[in-house]
Amino acid sequence: MAPGNTRETPQVEPCPVRDVLERVGDKWSVLLVVHLRAGPARFSALLRGVDGISRRMLTRTLRLLERDGLVAREVFPTTPPSVEYSLTELGRALAEPLDALSEWAMTHRVRVEDARLRYDAMHA
Amino acid sequence: MAPGNTRETPQVEPCPVRDVLERVGDKWSVLLVVHLRAGPARFSALLRGVDGISRRMLTRTLRLLERDGLVAREVFPTTPPSVEYSLTELGRALAEPLDALSEWAMTHRVRVEDARLRYDAMHA
Repeated sequence: MAPGNTRETPQVEPCPVRDVLERVGDKWSVLLVVHLRAGPARFSALLRGVDGISRRMLTRTLRLLERDGLVAREVFPTTPPSVEYSLTELGRALAEPLDALSEWAMTHRVRVEDARLRYDAMHA
Repeated sequence: MAPGNTRETPQVEPCPVRDVLERVGDKWSVLLVVHLRAGPARFSALLRGVDGISRRMLTRTLRLLERDGLVAREVFPTTPPSVEYSLTELGRALAEPLDALSEWAMTHRVRVEDARLRYDAMHA
């Protein structure tokens, strides 16, 4: 309210890293993008394939990925209509760094777990 | 309760990708790791450097990163004592895929924004 109360720095340029991470750093988004690298998939296949995701969360995440231009949704005129999801070119480009991230995770998981055990023992 | 009620698949092997993403996919963790690539930093410098992070969230995120073995905390016997945070070897290894991710974000941010505008116009 007071004229001097403008300590918050104006957001001249939004942080691209943060912006993208708010979305694609989301756990389910990453898992879906990594999953869709194998090829197009139907909703039901994704629901089975991405362990632990709920129907509601899958619907929501696919919609956000579609909105971001990372996933394309194609409806086939079968009875009942079937819907297939696939990575767009943009989504495929994102899959590369995400793969590197999951590779890091697989390589170093044991070290992270060891570090946690040590930390917890020291801070018990 | 019923013997047949065991539909939940037993988690034979926890998913390493998901496990690591729950933690490092966290927006503030990523921003801190990327920030610490430049070198060790004090709490106050991180608070200024990572735009938008609160004191409480910085404390919490640094503690989690330290627990994961990604960040080391060193206390210097000054008056008052000063604390410096730096990436461990494990943290530096993680910084690489995270850098690739932020590079993707910077390169494709405009395309993501365009996709959102198109999606919102189509679904208004």
